[in-house]
This record gives sequence, C-alpha cells and structure tokens, in this order.
Amino acid sequence: MPTERLVVIGGVAAGMSAASRARKINPRLEIIVLEKGRDISYGACGLPFLISGQVARPEELVVYTPEFFREERKIDVRLEHEATEIEPGRKLIRALHRGSQPVDIHYDKLVIATGGAPALSIPGAELPNVFNCNSLAAAIRLRRFLDDKNPGQAIIIGASYIGLECAEAMVARGIKVSILERSASVLGGFEPEIARRVQQGLSDRGVRLHTDAEATAIAAGPAGQGITVQYGSGSAAQADLALLATGVVPQTTLAQTAGMRLGATGAIAVDDRMQTSVNSVYAAGDCTEVMHLVSGKPTYFPLGTTANKQGRVAGENAAGGNARFDGIVGTLATKVFDLEVAKTGLSTQQALADGFQPGRVVLESYSHAKYLGGKPLSVVLIWDQPSGRVLGCQMIGEEGAAKRVDAAAVALHARMRVEDLLHLDLSYAPPFGTVWEPLLIAAHEAVKRRRGG
Amino acid sequence: MPTERLVVIGGVAAGMSAASRARKINPRLEIIVLEKGRDISYGACGLPFLISGQVARPEELVVYTPEFFREERKIDVRLEHEATEIEPGRKLIRALHRGSQPVDIHYDKLVIATGGAPALSIPGAELPNVFNCNSLAAAIRLRRFLDDKNPGQAIIIGASYIGLECAEAMVARGIKVSILERSASVLGGFEPEIARRVQQGLSDRGVRLHTDAEATAIAAGPAGQGITVQYGSGSAAQADLALLATGVVPQTTLAQTAGMRLGATGAIAVDDRMQTSVNSVYAAGDCTEVMHLVSGKPTYFPLGTTANKQGRVAGENAAGGNARFDGIVGTLATKVFDLEVAKTGLSTQQALADGFQPGRVVLESYSHAKYLGGKPLSVVLIWDQPSGRVLGCQMIGEEGAAKRVDAAAVALHARMRVEDLLHLDLSYAPPFGTVWEPLLIAAHEAVKRRRGG
Repeated sequence: MPTERLVVIGGVAAGMSAASRARKINPRLEIIVLEKGRDISYGACGLPFLISGQVARPEELVVYTPEFFREERKIDVRLEHEATEIEPGRKLIRALHRGSQPVDIHYDKLVIATGGAPALSIPGAELPNVFNCNSLAAAIRLRRFLDDKNPGQAIIIGASYIGLECAEAMVARGIKVSILERSASVLGGFEPEIARRVQQGLSDRGVRLHTDAEATAIAAGPAGQGITVQYGSGSAAQADLALLATGVVPQTTLAQTAGMRLGATGAIAVDDRMQTSVNSVYAAGDCTEVMHLVSGKPTYFPLGTTANKQGRVAGENAAGGNARFDGIVGTLATKVFDLEVAKTGLSTQQALADGFQPGRVVLESYSHAKYLGGKPLSVVLIWDQPSGRVLGCQMIGEEGAAKRVDAAAVALHARMRVEDLLHLDLSYAPPFGTVWEPLLIAAHEAVKRRRGG
Repeated sequence: MPTERLVVIGGVAAGMSAASRARKINPRLEIIVLEKGRDISYGACGLPFLISGQVARPEELVVYTPEFFREERKIDVRLEHEATEIEPGRKLIRALHRGSQPVDIHYDKLVIATGGAPALSIPGAELPNVFNCNSLAAAIRLRRFLDDKNPGQAIIIGASYIGLECAEAMVARGIKVSILERSASVLGGFEPEIARRVQQGLSDRGVRLHTDAEATAIAAGPAGQGITVQYGSGSAAQADLALLATGVVPQTTLAQTAGMRLGATGAIAVDDRMQTSVNSVYAAGDCTEVMHLVSGKPTYFPLGTTANKQGRVAGENAAGGNARFDGIVGTLATKVFDLEVAKTGLSTQQALADGFQPGRVVLESYSHAKYLGGKPLSVVLIWDQPSGRVLGCQMIGEEGAAKRVDAAAVALHARMRVEDLLHLDLSYAPPFGTVWEPLLIAAHEAVKRRRGG
C-alpha cells in the first residue's frame, strides 16, 4: 500500500503544529511543508522584542529549525516554496521555488495555514523606510535598519496591540515615537477606561498619540530623507521611518480560488474538526475564522495561541485522528510599557452588537495587599443583564492583570453567571492578591445591579 | 415593633464580615459584636509580614477600627468581651468583660465566629520565649521580642505554610532558623515534588529543616537562657525562642456546650446558608467546617478568604436575607522566600482517600517566554482516571504560580474534565506566559495517559 501524503501550506505556528501532530498520530505518513519564506516555526509574538533588542538574535525566536523537522520528525520542509494554486479535483498543488518552473505536488490530505497579511494597503507602503512586524523577515529588516541607521523618529500607523508593543520597543532604543490611529482610541475591543489608562501610559513615556488620524499616504520625506505620512484631512508628519501596524487580514486567495468557502468574516470557514468546505482539505491559524464561544458566532481573531491549537487539531484529523476545537473566548494580553493589559470575552460594544443586553462595572482594586506595595488594578466586568451570564472581563495595571484574566476566561468557557463568580475559591496570600479578589468584588457589584440594588 | 438584635461572637474576618453584611441588609437591626481580644478586623494573613518588619506597624493590618464600625456602620463592637456560654432555649449569651461579673445578653439571631486556636498543646508552650502567630496580639508579642532582644536563633515547630512564612520573616531579620516537622515533609497537602522544591529553597536560604521530628516538650534553656525543645526519640535543640506553627483547630467549646452539632472534622457543622443545627444560630470562619466541592465532603480548611465569604453569607441570612455558600475547592497560595507555591483541589493522597482513582502528571515548564527571562515553573495536574474529572493542580516557581492556579480553581468549580482543559483560551504574551500554558500542556499529557498513550 502506498503511503498517504499530507501537504501543509505555511510553516509558522499553525502549519508546523499540524505537521508535528500529524507525525505523532501517523508515523508512516509522508509530510511535506511548503513555506514561501525562509523561516519556519518562530514565535511571532516575540517579534517586538527582537526589534527592541531584548531578544538579541532572530534565532532565539525560532522554536525548531528545518533540520530538526527533517531529521527528528521526518517532515520534508521546503523553504521558499510558494503554493500558487490548488486543484482539489485532482488533489494537486502548484508550487514555485525561487522563480523556477511551477511543479505539481500531489496530496492526499492538505492543511492550509497561509496566515495573515498586513491589513491596510496604503500608497507608499512599498517605500524602503516603511516597515511592518508581521513576519520574522519583516522584523529582521526593521531591526537591521534600526541597528544600522540609528534613526531618531518613527511614526507607527495603527494603535493595535502590535503597534503599541513596537512603540515600546522603539522608545527603549531611544527613538521618538508618534502613533497615528484612525479611530478615537487605542486598542479596539477594549473598554474606554482601559484604553484611556493605556493612553496615559503612552503619554507618560513621551509617545505622541494622534487619534481620529487615518493615514492616507506615505511619501519620501523632504530632500529624499525619511518619510512623510499624510493623515486626517490634510495633516502630515515626518519621521525617519514608518511602521504599519494596522492589523492583519486573512490570506485566503489560494483557498478561495480553489473553491473553499469563506465565512462572513472573510476568513476561511472551518468546522470544529478544522475541515474546510472542500473534501480532505483542512485549514488552521490566521487564515481561518474561529468560533467565539461567548457570542456563538464565527469571528476573526488571529492569535498565536489559537493558531497552535487549531494546527494541532487539523494535523490530528488530517492524519486520520478525530480531534475537535470548539473555539475561543477572545482572550488577549499585552504589555505596554509598565502596564499589563488583558481582556477576555466581549467588550460592551461587541456584546451590544451580538444582541446581548450588557451590564458593566468598573472597579479600582489592587494587585496584592496594599501594605506590601500592591499596585492599582482596574477591572471591568461585563455581563448579560437578563441572564446574568458573564460576557467579558478586562484588566489593566502595573502587575497582576495578564494571568488574572485567565480565571475569567475559564468562567466564560464554563458559561458561568455573575452569581457563580461570587464565591470562586481563588488563591490569596498578601504578596499575590487581596482577600477579596477584584473579580469577586466586581461580581458582587454585578449581582447587586442585577437585583436593582 | 422592637428592633431585632444580632449578636456576633468574634470580631476578626468572619465576624466583622457578618456584622457588616447584616448592617447592609437591614439598616434597623441592632448589631453587637463580642470580641474577647483587643483587636478586630485585621488581616491575619499579613501577620508574618509584621514579624519580618515589612509591615512596620500593626495598625497597617487593621482594615477598619472599632470606631469606624461604631460610627459608620452603627455596629456595637465590644472589645475584651468573652462569651462564656450560650443558652439557645432562652436566646441568651453569658459574657465576661475584664473579669467582671458575667452579664447576660439577649439575641434574636446569633453568628458564631470564634475562629481557630493553635493545634498542638505541647508541654512548655506557656513559657515566655514561646510564641505563635495565630492572632494580632500574638504576632505583636513576637515582634516586640524580636525588636527588643534581637535574638540570634529560633526554632519553628511545624512546617505548615504559616511556619514557613514565619521562617522567611525571621531569616529576613538575620535570625538563624531551624524547623521541626513531625511528618516526612513540609506543607502537608502538597505533592512530593512541590514539597521537595520548597525544602531545597529552605536549604538554599540556610534554614535547617528536621523532618520526622515531632516536638515533645519545651523547657527553659541552660542557665535560664532561651529554650530547649525535645523532639523525636531523645533529640534536643536550643534556641533563643520557639514559634508554634503546628496548624489550627476550630474553637468549638462554646458551640458544642450549647448543643450545636459538630461535623466529623470536629468543626461546627453548617449548611450552605451557614446555619448551625440550632435555630437562629449561624457560624462562619475558622470554627466551622466547609464543603469541599471536589470531594463532595465537609472538610476543615481554615483560610481568611473563606472566612470572609462565609461571614458575609451568615450575616446576610441572619439579617433576613437568603444567601448561600456552596463551598471551596481547596485553593491555597504562599510565598516561601523566592518561591511562589500554590495549589487547588485535592492532592493525589487526598484523592485516593476520597475514593477517586487519581492519575497525575508532573510537568516542568516556564513562567513566561524563555527568551525574555522566563523562570522554571513546575506543575502537577491530578485527575480521576475513569471520569477524566480534574481533581487538583499544584504549581511552584519563582514567579507566576500563585495567580496561575486560579484558572485551575475555576475549572474545578465548573467540574471540568482534563479534555475540557485542552483548548482553554488563556492569555498569552511573551512577558507573561508561554504559547502553550503549562496547564494546557499538562492536560494534553493527561488526555494521552487516559487513552493509554
């Protein structure tokens, strides 16, 4: 019996998770990974730290090398191989290697993990002093520029969490940073109180934030030096470089051309086995949409943690196993200078859009006992007023926000009501917490408000 | 209509929570608190930090003063009033004030919050150089001794978490500490791997730990200086002082004499409304037993967090409300020098004793991304092999253990199986975590083992 062949398109988080899991499930499977770039299996979430220099060398972000995959896992990793077409009828993939003649590669099972691409296409994005942080190669290019040219000023377009992480990275290198954000505040998806605290933190560190300031074009700067960014209605800003951090859109061309169904979000639609609408083809990671377990609707929420989980499930199923991935609850954490910022679930706005009747409470508490130097911690708890179901939780503070939000995330998975939070047995010792955990105090307030108190 | 009167016996965590909640529920209720000592409403978990000096003055641990309660909450706090007898038939309490004639106080509703007392009665415990850390007064006495006498050596009897916190406090003051523990390891209720890591941490800081070393008697030291502790079969150790940290037993004499039912644990039995077996009498805090939601059995697990929750529920119900406290999942955190140590749920031993068939996995992971200086973090996950139900989780490491255990605690409340943990959407950013949270990696291993992998 001839061995079956699994082909994986894309070799970062979802793709390499799929390939590795498939190998575990089926030792005899032939596994080929086609990666159009030169890097695989790296921690994309660590890229801002490569830019800052806290991560000295790109290799530190690489989890496993191609050699490791080839030798230890018998996975045929093909770098600089770009899949250009899928023919599901004949189970063929057309691929190019460094401008070679296209070759056809047969597959029995296919996993698409083509990832995301920078969201905004802005005139001038191709200029030499314009950068993004969406891939290891892109981050290396920026890092080299910073090392070589020692620029003094940067403009970041987009106050997404990646934009803010890169702002911190550049400030750490002594660069003066301005941010242009097209909406009215930073960090879409966060509550106004949280966003305002972040904006205060940016201002404290000398970052100039322009909100309601949509970038419309980038051009070479005066006398060919640096760049000029046009924004808003007729404003312009100059700097030595610009960084695009306007978010990510799913790379779906390949899948769409091959007839795979996209969801309403524009990303590849998959079921809970990560199967696409086309037989024997799975998809995972930033090119797919994902079920939001709080709203009950598919959403586009590209994150490395989810990509790894989805990739693992796709690989298991492609190799003949039977794994399921139910979905996410929308958990996200980021560090912005001295602040930990984290959320899980829906924001009030998202909850309204999803048909809930959200109640909310904003609470000022502490990360741990005040008498041991506990830091202020702000908590927002969001619930559905008629049912009491917890819908979301957001936290911000100098410490204790990121991992604290996980308790709320588990509560969302368990579909708890605010009443169920009241007596959660959460850990306490004065160096780590407060006798009443902030989440519990918020729950008490929520219960009171539900009772009309 | 005459106002109803609520009497609360005991004015620390549970007692003052009950009184405060009752006031909120019923503004007209007469509320009297009888406290046999001179302190109320203090954070008992902070006492080791008073001993170390990190908390400079005892007042810093006091949440609210008697004056605050009298004036702001109209609660009649009576210090140095010891309740000596309850007559439920006539709804009377007999109380002594500084050796006065006993007075009878009528109650309509009663909350008993008499707390716990040091567990071990050892000959010589009454000697002047023998201390404990079970009350603010006891901690102040020890702190004064340390400030005044500047002792060089201390013996701590009992490697409970309070014993270890006090060891750290004394080492911070330059005192040479020996610990005598009657069992084979520190921190009963923790898994051997966790306990061994703690023991290594103690040894690294110069603390001398004697296990299988039961203290049998304390006597004055040679030439009347300091103390001598007899332990094991004929050994003896000398020091300037001894500290009893052998745990706590419920103070139940008052309740038992009045005919209230005690549970199998020896603590006062209460239902989920915190009602005792006697009409109109509630109990809360370290004098009561509590339902363990994992084992489904009442247990004795005295902690400040639980006392506050129980007190609140007892107070609400005593004031005519209707609140319930379902129980705990056994969460506990402590700091031992540089180590965060935390657990939730049952240990393997406890699970066996409770009739489960526990499986377990020990995992070495990291608190956050290694390339950003993440610290080793050890995780033990315990589950029931036939059902897959999560039974417990323990963690230890230099950072990220205490609050991380909370996600597992919520999973225990929700009665999740290890399969449910696999895809929990927990927060990730390189400064705070790892792409695969340690709990999720442990869950993958657990699922594999359940499948016989």
